[in-house]
Amino acid sequence: MNLISLITDFGLKDNFVGVTKAVILKINPTAQIVDVCHEVKPQDIPQAAFLLKNSFRYFPSGTVHLVVVDPGVGSKRKKIIAQTKNYFFVGPDNGILSLALKDERPVKVIEITNKKYFLKPVSDTFHGRDVFAPVSAYVSKGEDIRKFGRTIKSFKVLELPAVKVTKHELTGEIIYIDRFGNLVSNIDRDTLENFIKNKKFRILIKNKTIDNLSHSYSEGTHQRPIALIDSFNYLEIAINSHSARDYLRADKGAKIKVIKD
Amino acid sequence: MNLISLITDFGLKDNFVGVTKAVILKINPTAQIVDVCHEVKPQDIPQAAFLLKNSFRYFPSGTVHLVVVDPGVGSKRKKIIAQTKNYFFVGPDNGILSLALKDERPVKVIEITNKKYFLKPVSDTFHGRDVFAPVSAYVSKGEDIRKFGRTIKSFKVLELPAVKVTKHELTGEIIYIDRFGNLVSNIDRDTLENFIKNKKFRILIKNKTIDNLSHSYSEGTHQRPIALIDSFNYLEIAINSHSARDYLRADKGAKIKVIKD
Amino acid sequence: MNLISLITDFGLKDNFVGVTKAVILKINPTAQIVDVCHEVKPQDIPQAAFLLKNSFRYFPSGTVHLVVVDPGVGSKRKKIIAQTKNYFFVGPDNGILSLALKDERPVKVIEITNKKYFLKPVSDTFHGRDVFAPVSAYVSKGEDIRKFGRTIKSFKVLELPAVKVTKHELTGEIIYIDRFGNLVSNIDRDTLENFIKNKKFRILIKNKTIDNLSHSYSEGTHQRPIALIDSFNYLEIAINSHSARDYLRADKGAKIKVIKD
Repeated sequence: MNLISLITDFGLKDNFVGVTKAVILKINPTAQIVDVCHEVKPQDIPQAAFLLKNSFRYFPSGTVHLVVVDPGVGSKRKKIIAQTKNYFFVGPDNGILSLALKDERPVKVIEITNKKYFLKPVSDTFHGRDVFAPVSAYVSKGEDIRKFGRTIKSFKVLELPAVKVTKHELTGEIIYIDRFGNLVSNIDRDTLENFIKNKKFRILIKNKTIDNLSHSYSEGTHQRPIALIDSFNYLEIAINSHSARDYLRADKGAKIKVIKD
Repeated sequence: MNLISLITDFGLKDNFVGVTKAVILKINPTAQIVDVCHEVKPQDIPQAAFLLKNSFRYFPSGTVHLVVVDPGVGSKRKKIIAQTKNYFFVGPDNGILSLALKDERPVKVIEITNKKYFLKPVSDTFHGRDVFAPVSAYVSKGEDIRKFGRTIKSFKVLELPAVKVTKHELTGEIIYIDRFGNLVSNIDRDTLENFIKNKKFRILIKNKTIDNLSHSYSEGTHQRPIALIDSFNYLEIAINSHSARDYLRADKGAKIKVIKD
Repeated sequence: MNLISLITDFGLKDNFVGVTKAVILKINPTAQIVDVCHEVKPQDIPQAAFLLKNSFRYFPSGTVHLVVVDPGVGSKRKKIIAQTKNYFFVGPDNGILSLALKDERPVKVIEITNKKYFLKPVSDTFHGRDVFAPVSAYVSKGEDIRKFGRTIKSFKVLELPAVKVTKHELTGEIIYIDRFGNLVSNIDRDTLENFIKNKKFRILIKNKTIDNLSHSYSEGTHQRPIALIDSFNYLEIAINSHSARDYLRADKGAKIKVIKD
């Protein structure tokens, strides 16, 4: 397999993504590179970790997932490769890989130290190009990951904000807002279904009450927000053909409650 | 042929495009995927239809054009594959394919119903990933399109706003504004030439009068808008090194008249 | 080699990039196309030239670099192919290739005139699609570049703003601002090191004084800008996890001084 997926905060207005790909293709000319997202907010590690968690499993087995949001570049933060049953993950050890690695546990984690695989000279400011790109390219070519450095036992772990569960109430928050203004909460399908158990419930967000789950975005009206389980299995607030974020003036961190009567 | 082109309103800030491509490559690892546009305004079916109409013919014969702007996802709108002499088109049956299919008539249209080709489980909110991506991947691998469902005779048709023609006057409107602020009208080359027939004419837009056709954007001055037949054969209003939209404060829907003296 | 890199001001909201790639792939179905940047400010030739200069050398030998920012399209500006030891460069003769060609001198420059290689009909407004894309595709397939037109001796040359050097002072300016708000100056590593020669120095920008070079973005605080040599070897002003542009209210053209005590 020869596929490399990319998630970065490099944006598309500079040449950062382009030179990262150039370095990969110089080492592995037959690599296929798929952009998952380069518009992660600068330095927003949780956002990148969340995008990775919700993307990696759609890729073919053997894919190398290269993820670079790296405010600590040039400092002492480690650089790691994690191998799971199906994938390789390459990035800085700042938690960015950890939400995905909770879903698919690593069988081996390597601290990248072998400079043989780096672009020369290595800058202190752009390891995406100088370290992570060439390492990913060699991994995609099948190089044994033990050659890149020593095995380590732990890596930095990030947690999604926890959902508070009481007998009558689930309290979560908005953790992601997509292009359409849909508000994605940290309440996942299992948590919600275990809580509701086919009882009646109300969802509260920003002074609005929603008392059922919809199935598709085309339900509801332009004036009435709906709740649904989205395609990544999170409870989401949306509004027909409009932005729920704009309509509700809700931002990341906004509280969402599910209440059983 | 193994080429798949993409037009969507998924944007580039989320992982929607990335997972769509992942699903395609899992089914057809040798597919080549070309992004035509992902920045269609959310739910703007006519804009996507127009972009497709002006793009599809540049691709090699055999290309699968995957087009997803799908406000009706999860509702009863059909999902279709259209085969023409040279191409395949895949998308929701909401008119999005119809401007292209007016230029190159379909030889067969299939309503996609065979769940065998869908990602499991199929969400009600993201058919781009769960239905259209895998179907496109199988089509690009050469699967007979009759296997995806039953042949249908009609599909939803969208029309560009009509140009009004009288003896002395053509009345059109601005239907597209590009990145440079060039104002693209619905008056095409043939309509204009048949009307003018080498006579003198004036073009009126937003209180400005333009009395000839230019050939290139570098004509005119920064203060004087020009009219030209653009590279997609529409009458277009532009201004040298500036945005005609900003200069004229014109938006989509703005009227444009061509008057014979 | 089959790789084509793209730098344009086409943006991503229209179909310009997509149809450019379509034309390439129709001629060379096995071409690999890498986007370096399409968000060059409309008509900003110096910005594109700078991006090319800082990108081309990361690509494998044999890469065709296609660069289109072309305000003079349809006018008498030439269209050229430059061949260097390692690469091919294709674009309008408006200076856009010249910063790269200063770093890697051309062994041959051809004025593109042979219409055999153009898309028919050739528009006067979109040579990216109708001339440069097909020509790049044929070059990537190995066509002898002398077949595209006649050899020319000179081409338009652009210069970066000069750095003023006196005994005690270097005066440069900000020539590029990246996505993160980092301020890139025209003072390169060699110029700076030759000037400083291990003596003490101060850097002045926008009423702020910085008296040493940092090595990584994680140095300094959110309130204190730092200076460093960036990964493309320019003196750059940055601020930990924030935008130096916003913090200093600095724009392109802002003066930067290095003073020896």
